[in-house]
Amino acid sequence: MSKGILFIISGPSGSGKDSILAGVFKKEHNVALSISSVTRPMRPGEKEGDKYHFISREAFESMISHDELLEYNCFVGHYYGTPKQPVLDALEAGRDIFLEIDVNGAAMIRKAMPQAVSLFVVPPTYEELCRRLKGRGTDEPAVIAKRLEAAKGEISRAGEYDYLVTNDKLDQAVEDVLHIMAAERLKAAKQQDLINEVLGKC
Amino acid sequence: MSKGILFIISGPSGSGKDSILAGVFKKEHNVALSISSVTRPMRPGEKEGDKYHFISREAFESMISHDELLEYNCFVGHYYGTPKQPVLDALEAGRDIFLEIDVNGAAMIRKAMPQAVSLFVVPPTYEELCRRLKGRGTDEPAVIAKRLEAAKGEISRAGEYDYLVTNDKLDQAVEDVLHIMAAERLKAAKQQDLINEVLGKC
Repeated sequence: MSKGILFIISGPSGSGKDSILAGVFKKEHNVALSISSVTRPMRPGEKEGDKYHFISREAFESMISHDELLEYNCFVGHYYGTPKQPVLDALEAGRDIFLEIDVNGAAMIRKAMPQAVSLFVVPPTYEELCRRLKGRGTDEPAVIAKRLEAAKGEISRAGEYDYLVTNDKLDQAVEDVLHIMAAERLKAAKQQDLINEVLGKC
Repeated sequence: MSKGILFIISGPSGSGKDSILAGVFKKEHNVALSISSVTRPMRPGEKEGDKYHFISREAFESMISHDELLEYNCFVGHYYGTPKQPVLDALEAGRDIFLEIDVNGAAMIRKAMPQAVSLFVVPPTYEELCRRLKGRGTDEPAVIAKRLEAAKGEISRAGEYDYLVTNDKLDQAVEDVLHIMAAERLKAAKQQDLINEVLGKC
């Protein structure tokens, strides 16, 4: 059986990564979302093990010292990271994994696992990005400006990724991700077993 | 407008390359098959410009000396080659091109145009390969043995290709090629214009 593929997905706030992944998971069943470990408190509506594992700072620092994380960072006093073993186990079992992560985390993953396939999601135009970041019109202009600045920084690194998915129409963006997943499974480098199988009997 | 993509497709005799391409061309219209130039005589049922341009040896050798071929070879006294300009023109116009070619020609194209995307078509099993090569049972065992040997040589170089497409069910193989075409268009390296466009207005 061939191994699973690790997909990294990034994109600025408002690019629609979550909606795209929800659409992908509806159509592809042999794929899972990596669950991050975090030290921040649980927020109302969140559930342990749903999108995050909520662990103590001590437990997190123990994972760091035992090299049990694929990547991690510290943000306003809390740790966020990707536990290594569940990802490796899933890949070994032939299951694809999606990691939703920012551009810095993606760079760390690429270094640790060069075979990872990375996708960057962009809104179709600058105007649309502004519209989405402004959200429901309840945010201060300074907050919006900060979000735009962060988005600009992320998009400027989109060229580090393997694929660029434009989220104009959600259905098309989901289809695009499914095309990428299918094509990546067809990579010759991932199918050397098949070549050997056909050749071995020649 | 983004440029077209040059796709190379190879595979042993009996792998079903022609049937796959026919299926692809039915669904994708912004793609063309490269027409080879050959010096062999036209066979009954063939038409000038359909799959080949039939030209004189002098004309072919003039193309060689003027570097007007992407690749060429000589087979039982006749030249076969891929004219360069029509391929470059189509790519420039944003049209994808498929080149159906053997493993040696593919290696030459890859060297001349490293951006080419290469696909290798394999039958699902060795038994199926034998069945297809034996054809309608009218060929001499020696001829079949020669075909099997040639197929083995080609398949042993499948690892040089970007993608491996298994032609078990034709419809699935066509879908696989369409996935690859779609994914290749989503490569970030081919969409730097889009990144600049979104960023330029930030």
